[in-house]
Order: sequence, then structure tokens, then C-alpha cells
Amino acid sequence: MGRWEPNARERLELAALELFRERGYDGTTVAEIAERAGLTKRSFFRHFADKRELLFSGQEQLTRLIAEAIAAAPTSATPLEAITAALTALDSIFDDERRVLARERQAIIAANVELRERELLKGTVLTTAMAAALRERGDPEPVANLAAEFGGLALHLAFTRWIEPKAGEAYAKLAHQAVDELRATAAELG
Amino acid sequence: MGRWEPNARERLELAALELFRERGYDGTTVAEIAERAGLTKRSFFRHFADKRELLFSGQEQLTRLIAEAIAAAPTSATPLEAITAALTALDSIFDDERRVLARERQAIIAANVELRERELLKGTVLTTAMAAALRERGDPEPVANLAAEFGGLALHLAFTRWIEPKAGEAYAKLAHQAVDELRATAAELG
Repeated sequence: MGRWEPNARERLELAALELFRERGYDGTTVAEIAERAGLTKRSFFRHFADKRELLFSGQEQLTRLIAEAIAAAPTSATPLEAITAALTALDSIFDDERRVLARERQAIIAANVELRERELLKGTVLTTAMAAALRERGDPEPVANLAAEFGGLALHLAFTRWIEPKAGEAYAKLAHQAVDELRATAAELG
Repeated sequence: MGRWEPNARERLELAALELFRERGYDGTTVAEIAERAGLTKRSFFRHFADKRELLFSGQEQLTRLIAEAIAAAPTSATPLEAITAALTALDSIFDDERRVLARERQAIIAANVELRERELLKGTVLTTAMAAALRERGDPEPVANLAAEFGGLALHLAFTRWIEPKAGEAYAKLAHQAVDELRATAAELG
């Protein structure tokens, strides 16, 4: 991760997406990804545990942004207001540049059972982080857990709409819409 | 699965739990499980893909019971009433005989990262089955998804309480309590 390998992480990610598109996920090796990025296999493993984890390297940053935003929410904020702040904070990642890459990544995941399972796990990790951050600020367990599941659904909804080819809306707007929709939906559960 | 191997599945499950308790999950082989059950490795693989899947063999039956109960709910039932019916239907599996085995199984899972991830996936499979069954009976997508997440949380809450050593309550009662609690909780989300 020295100065002699500028943007190694990003180069590896872009090279991997390119190769997955060309040869499929299963048909691509770590050596090929490193080569395409102009780096060594050793460099690859300095940044990622394996080619699967490269596709899930964003999980850590998302988790951190979510936890920080919930912790920073005013104590007067309701659990859903804190969740909305957390989802909105992801706007700093989900910008226009990222949108096409996110769409490509999602197509690769959709085509592979193992990756779909890993994606579900990522969803659970994010939801668990929301619940932990809410408990941390004093929301009791059942409230924190329910609000976190609500947040997980809203995130999924907003993200799925954001990467749609025809979508032009900014992620933050879609996140607010998703929360509002789910809030209205909650009233229909009976 | 012939007549010459009566209860092979159950025998393998009991033998596996015994061995996992004695030697740990990682320290137990499929050959040892088969031997303890008085069966061959070949018999084992007729019933389970591997020793991990043996621990998750109940997933299919749970999924089926959930889907059937939601499909059988009267059309006048609200989404949450249909979910409550689904959770209550699992009473036929979660009886007193099963409780100790379920507790043992959960202790084995808690001690192993790979198993914990598989358990999260099982939770997602059950939630997805609830959502699909609700859509099938005409509930629109956001309502079905939110009700299903609600159902997943209620199931987790009821199950966790049911396997507690001191718990004496029947599962069905705990399931109703969990739904009622979460319903009250929803009002506090803000």
C-alpha cells in the first residue's frame, strides 16, 4: 500500500469488474486481475482476501458511515429519523460515478449463487450495524431491531432504484422516498 | 432411504449432535457420524449434502409450513394475521421433544462463524418465503416485504425465548407474544 502503487485498490476493483464482464466471475483468476491492473498477485492479497471479497470491500465503509451517522443523530431524533440520517449519509459513496460500477457489480452478483449468499450476508451485517448503533444511543432492543430491519428494507429499495439504468434521481432523494413509502406501508400491515 | 434403514435421517441427526457436543463441530467427520448412527457414509450422503447441511435440514420443512399457513389464511386476514398464522403453524415442529435438541443445535452454531453465517442465510430464506407467500395471496410488494421482515424478527424472538433453559412456555404462546410486542414496538419507531 506504499506510494509506489497509487490507487492500487481502485485499479484492482476496476480490472476485476472488467474481467468479470468479459470472462465471467468463475472464469477469472486473481492473477489475471492483478495483471490487468498492472500489479502483482502479492499486491492483490495486500488489499483483498480473495476475488469474492473484492466485490464486498465496500461493506466496511458502509458499516462505518451508518454507525457514525446514527451516533451523530440528535438524541431527540426518533429511531426512524436516525435510520434516515444513516441512509442519507451513504450519499457520499453512492454518487454518479459509482452508479454504473454498482450496477455492473450487481449484475455479476445476480448471476452467481455463492455471491448472492454473500450479498445477503452483507445486508445482514449492515442491518446488525444499524441495530447496534441504535442500542448504543439508548433505543431498547426490540425498537432498535425493528427500526434496523426497516432501515435494511429502505436501503435495499433505494439502492435497487438508484442503479436502475433509467434512474436519474440522486441516491439521497431515493432513500428519503423509500423511508416514506415504508412508513406508509407499515400502516397497512394490520 | 429404503425400509432397511428405519429413521436413518433422525439417527444421523442425533448421532451428529452427540459427536459435535463431544468433539466439536470441526473435530467430527461424516464417517464418524455415520458410524455412530450405525450407518454407512453412503447412507449419510443419501440424506445430507454434508455435515453442515445436516444442521440445516429443518429449513425445508419450516419453509413449507410457513408457505402453506400463509396460503391457507382467510383472504380477510391482514398481512400480520397471516404472518401470525405462519409462525403458529411451526408449533407442530417446535414441541417439547424438539426443544432440547434445538438448544444444543443453537449452541453448536453459536460457536462457529461459518455456521452462524449459514444460520443468517436460513433466516433470510424463511423471510423470503413469507414475503413470496404474502405476494401470492395478493399483498403488494412493499407490504409483503415489510410484513415478512416483521415475521422474521418475531420468529427469531419467539424461538430464542423458547429454547432458553428456564423457558417453560409453549412455542405458540411465545410466537403470539412476540408478534404483540413487535406490534407495540412499531408504534415507537417515530
